[in-house]
Amino acid sequence: MTKVETLSVVNIGIDTHQELVVYMREDCHICVAEGFTASSRLAIKHNHKEIIATLNVVSGDMLDRGQIGLSKVALLRLNVQAGDQVLVKHSPIVHSLSAVRKKIFAEELTDDEIHAIVYDINSHRYRDIEIASFLSVCAGNRLNLDEIISLTKAMVDCGRSLSWTNQQKVYDKHCIGGLPGNRTTPIVVSIVSAAGLIIPKTSSRAITSPAGTADTMECLTHVNLEIGDIKRVVAETGGCLAWGGAVNLSPADDLLIRIEKALNLDGEGQLIASVLSKKIAAGSTDILIDIPVGATAKVRSQAQAQHLLELFSQVAKACNINVKCVITDGSKPIGQGIGPMEEARDILAVLNRTAEAPQDLRERALFLAANLIDMADNAGFEQALTKATQLLDNGQALAQFKRILTAQGGIKTLTQAKFSHTERAKTAGKIISIDNRKLARLARLAGAPENPEAGLRLCANVGDTVSVAQPLFTLLSQSNGERDYALNYYHHNTDIFIIEE
Amino acid sequence: MTKVETLSVVNIGIDTHQELVVYMREDCHICVAEGFTASSRLAIKHNHKEIIATLNVVSGDMLDRGQIGLSKVALLRLNVQAGDQVLVKHSPIVHSLSAVRKKIFAEELTDDEIHAIVYDINSHRYRDIEIASFLSVCAGNRLNLDEIISLTKAMVDCGRSLSWTNQQKVYDKHCIGGLPGNRTTPIVVSIVSAAGLIIPKTSSRAITSPAGTADTMECLTHVNLEIGDIKRVVAETGGCLAWGGAVNLSPADDLLIRIEKALNLDGEGQLIASVLSKKIAAGSTDILIDIPVGATAKVRSQAQAQHLLELFSQVAKACNINVKCVITDGSKPIGQGIGPMEEARDILAVLNRTAEAPQDLRERALFLAANLIDMADNAGFEQALTKATQLLDNGQALAQFKRILTAQGGIKTLTQAKFSHTERAKTAGKIISIDNRKLARLARLAGAPENPEAGLRLCANVGDTVSVAQPLFTLLSQSNGERDYALNYYHHNTDIFIIEE
Repeated sequence: MTKVETLSVVNIGIDTHQELVVYMREDCHICVAEGFTASSRLAIKHNHKEIIATLNVVSGDMLDRGQIGLSKVALLRLNVQAGDQVLVKHSPIVHSLSAVRKKIFAEELTDDEIHAIVYDINSHRYRDIEIASFLSVCAGNRLNLDEIISLTKAMVDCGRSLSWTNQQKVYDKHCIGGLPGNRTTPIVVSIVSAAGLIIPKTSSRAITSPAGTADTMECLTHVNLEIGDIKRVVAETGGCLAWGGAVNLSPADDLLIRIEKALNLDGEGQLIASVLSKKIAAGSTDILIDIPVGATAKVRSQAQAQHLLELFSQVAKACNINVKCVITDGSKPIGQGIGPMEEARDILAVLNRTAEAPQDLRERALFLAANLIDMADNAGFEQALTKATQLLDNGQALAQFKRILTAQGGIKTLTQAKFSHTERAKTAGKIISIDNRKLARLARLAGAPENPEAGLRLCANVGDTVSVAQPLFTLLSQSNGERDYALNYYHHNTDIFIIEE
Repeated sequence: MTKVETLSVVNIGIDTHQELVVYMREDCHICVAEGFTASSRLAIKHNHKEIIATLNVVSGDMLDRGQIGLSKVALLRLNVQAGDQVLVKHSPIVHSLSAVRKKIFAEELTDDEIHAIVYDINSHRYRDIEIASFLSVCAGNRLNLDEIISLTKAMVDCGRSLSWTNQQKVYDKHCIGGLPGNRTTPIVVSIVSAAGLIIPKTSSRAITSPAGTADTMECLTHVNLEIGDIKRVVAETGGCLAWGGAVNLSPADDLLIRIEKALNLDGEGQLIASVLSKKIAAGSTDILIDIPVGATAKVRSQAQAQHLLELFSQVAKACNINVKCVITDGSKPIGQGIGPMEEARDILAVLNRTAEAPQDLRERALFLAANLIDMADNAGFEQALTKATQLLDNGQALAQFKRILTAQGGIKTLTQAKFSHTERAKTAGKIISIDNRKLARLARLAGAPENPEAGLRLCANVGDTVSVAQPLFTLLSQSNGERDYALNYYHHNTDIFIIEE
């Protein structure tokens, strides 16, 4: 193919999320000559950079002949600006798609094939439907152990990696998630780094939950740290609490997760590769994985948790890292605050040992910190728990937390939501369950995490006995509209709190 | 959910193919209040009609606050015009997606579940990645016989159906495809309707091939017939040669096929449901299915063909129709013309019994016509073949073809391509193979089927002995650019014609 054509770039101002889309006139000479039609796949080149994008054909006055509109993400990936000339050609054949076809026919993929797929996805050569196809035929436990190992390694290989001093143990923790308010990480990092462990924690922002650790930490300090900043903070304090997205570890995972979430897929092979690739790329050597089990948590049965635990251990071994999994109670929300600002408030309360500090959050954080300390000291869990409790109770964990915040750029003051509304029990009795998923949705409808002040504050939890009109929770929002929308949802989902008389 | 909001419709002039997309400003009050972001799924309502669409967020001057842009297909499906007020809400939960999840976990789907999936797809409630997920986990022979039967029936149920007089047998034919130039249908319909069979043939346009039967027929007459027209033409002549798209039979199939083609999936369950649902909806009772087998045809082995044949028969039986499958030679192109106008030329040559009429096309059409006549007469294939040959040779088939064209609105005159270029053999020897897929691609690059005159004319076929500089084919195009592009492809794919010295 020697024939190429150029068009002038226009910033068309359309956000297509992560799908690369370009816009061309239907009477554009290239469309006509090349036979391009809506949804054709094109290669767009500029200065040795190339992207593959989906064509949307436009009519009318949006573009001149000789112009090509690029969506926001396409402009970013191709690194072009309005007025730049780009070459437009037929998309090249993406060879790794033949491996996806193999998997459709239930064949086992080789390490090379999985690396090729991940490389092409990471290079934005797959369109969304192709990623959806790959993920769908890998979900349903269709990846065997070797394939999960290959996937994990491929995801590490295609991004940047952090490296730390040789022979040094680098700790990390991860929670499989699903429990609103369960924001133990900042407390655990403070305790174990006060105990002398190196724990350069990078966390994600919320995707489907009301808050991620990075969203919560952003209420308290700066989290967009470059690799150099992370190294400095860790050198100064032994720990950090940064946003992982800024350092581009395992970037292919971000592309996969977006489609997984949209399809509500939760393939365990994908989950393990996602978690471990990020940890390995972060240079971690010893990782604690918390698997909460509960009817409305992400993992719903002990058997499923046990199976995950075994897979995690085997993949970790193949990747030369040390993993310890703990299976914990995932039957109810943890802490009182749900949403970035309210969760930050709970964290400060626990570290400050105030009277209103949520005991369940404190106990969970101590349990996890003790497990990490035990991984390091090998002196038994009881002794590790005593050590963790001392570090929290004597204020060393709080001091350590402040050191980390200061090293990351300073301590922010928490703010309050503009609107609050308290919902009360309609019947008296014992709260026998709270639906974690619906509670999370309620907090999101109130505006979390986009508005960090939004969310809710629980006034009662599972096991508590309430009287009529006793507060169940306070809804927090930044607009009337969101408050009304969330309350409307609550009134249509009366099974969020089950109260037995 | 009682809270709803309205926005004013703008025709934004973007063709997103079949994916429904709406465009809203990032500072639009509804986006802010509802927390909509790029790729959110929204429900858009107008006058009791509702569509579910994907949001693209726009910045800049494209829209005013209070406006919503709709892509071409979204305007069409919602049946709105610029200035209409529409309600915008969160998309409702699409319950049948839980059945797709079941299939991801390799569970068998019930008839009800498959009907729900097809209903929701047909109602445009699935986004493309969800259709891709469903198709991917059904491909690779993951649908069992019962599921294929359910899928076929569901696809019939969600579209319109044609009905014909009771107790009347209604014939049809279908070719699994993959052979360029293999345009037997118009000849077969002419012969068998001359023999007294009722054959209301509806055909598709090309999707990935250089011509579909509807594209070819459009060079000769009008093919956009409404149901009433089809009934009238069949009443007058016993046959018709119309475009199926105009009568909306099995519309869900069109939505599935688009994603299947984009993913290069060819699940056999999907294929069978696609073919049979269209035939059943067309009211056919007796169907001949031609399965060409060849290294570069759609079906590549005798075993695969035999398996398809058995599935077709079983599904047909469950749907109370009579199907006969014939497995034929799919090793080489049929006829000389490839592309709508050139294929029409070959058809006329065979019907007119001219000296240059391609014998392979004639013989193939006679074989298929004889099989249909044998299905009707039950007097044996030899007698049927004699009858078919007589009807072709005595001009009755030609007369019948002209009657059908006239009834469909008149006979058009064929036109010639503007540019032609002949490629010649570089070595002498015997042509031992022609790559059907690449030859089809060559004709498409030349402009077929968008330009009906474009395509190519074979001067030699597999088995022929050629000398140096003897013409292999003439490339036909309507622009210099397309000619050059196609020739460039040819010169980079020298294995299209394999000549052995």
